[in-house]
Amino acid sequence: MAGPEIERLVQLLARLPGLGPRSARRAALALIKRREQLLEPLSAALRDAAAKVKTCSICGNFDSVDPCAICTDERRDLSIICVVDDVSSLWAMERSGMFRGRYHVLGGTLSALDGIGPEDLAVDTLVTRARSPAVAEVILALAATVDGQTTAHYLADRLAVCQVAVSGLAQGVPVGGELDYLDEGTIGAALRARRPVG
Amino acid sequence: MAGPEIERLVQLLARLPGLGPRSARRAALALIKRREQLLEPLSAALRDAAAKVKTCSICGNFDSVDPCAICTDERRDLSIICVVDDVSSLWAMERSGMFRGRYHVLGGTLSALDGIGPEDLAVDTLVTRARSPAVAEVILALAATVDGQTTAHYLADRLAVCQVAVSGLAQGVPVGGELDYLDEGTIGAALRARRPVG
Repeated sequence: MAGPEIERLVQLLARLPGLGPRSARRAALALIKRREQLLEPLSAALRDAAAKVKTCSICGNFDSVDPCAICTDERRDLSIICVVDDVSSLWAMERSGMFRGRYHVLGGTLSALDGIGPEDLAVDTLVTRARSPAVAEVILALAATVDGQTTAHYLADRLAVCQVAVSGLAQGVPVGGELDYLDEGTIGAALRARRPVG
Repeated sequence: MAGPEIERLVQLLARLPGLGPRSARRAALALIKRREQLLEPLSAALRDAAAKVKTCSICGNFDSVDPCAICTDERRDLSIICVVDDVSSLWAMERSGMFRGRYHVLGGTLSALDGIGPEDLAVDTLVTRARSPAVAEVILALAATVDGQTTAHYLADRLAVCQVAVSGLAQGVPVGGELDYLDEGTIGAALRARRPVG
């Protein structure tokens, strides 16, 4: 149908999360139509990312410097480590703007189904970091799923030998959440964790 | 949050159709995590497309050769021209595998709302092509929307001076379509165009 260059572009775009064959074709066409505004800048940005982005050897974040800008930012609190499953969760925490400590990216969560055990995750390096006298608290910011909570319990056990407080994110009604649209599990968790008002 | 290279990549990905800021972030992460399988091949494919893909000077298709592979394919029927609004529609026709003639890409449809008039579309070149004695039929494969059908009527008027039959796509129940899920307009069109059975 189209030339081999376009076919190849569509195939690769279709492998991005969130793009199926149909949207990959639309994206390829948009790129070809907007060569100077989109195709060439994206090509340069990909080359740049391939050349410069690396994994932070301390926390596992992606950045163009190692250690990453968060690990070397002296305004950030050395005494709190926030444990996340993935860099996408780290980005989500940063977007909230509410956490001023440092991170530790596990690289996934324990999963019996997917055969992911502790040895597949950055657990030992977390324990080593948590042993540092500078660290006072580890926040387990893991998903409120079975795998996420299993991982949190496992990490709490492993961190028991370190002199740190271990905490988890609160569960409850999300901001802007209407009860009518919430699942029973969330309503139950919010009820159990109810707080005095006024 | 992430390095400037990642930020730039996310920004550019978010400008692709079908990707919002959230899915652009997911796509950027997937690219960085799968550097050799995805990031580097996509970077090469974009470079390739930027260097090689051009617009066919006859029909308006995108290809790495000009005229495009369809216009120069001698097995295809010279006597039928299929008019489409956009290259995406040309691709859709090709996927059906049912059309063996050649194409003419208009570059859009007439639209009073968007201020798109005949001078913005490849109408004159269509009339010139249709005047060729080799051409016997022009199929107006335009969307069954107000703008698409307005454009079809306008083109039929313009093509009246050429010695060609002008046809349009049939309207009716799509293959696999259940009446329960179809809009009234489609059911009405299918009823009006009803055919004898058996």
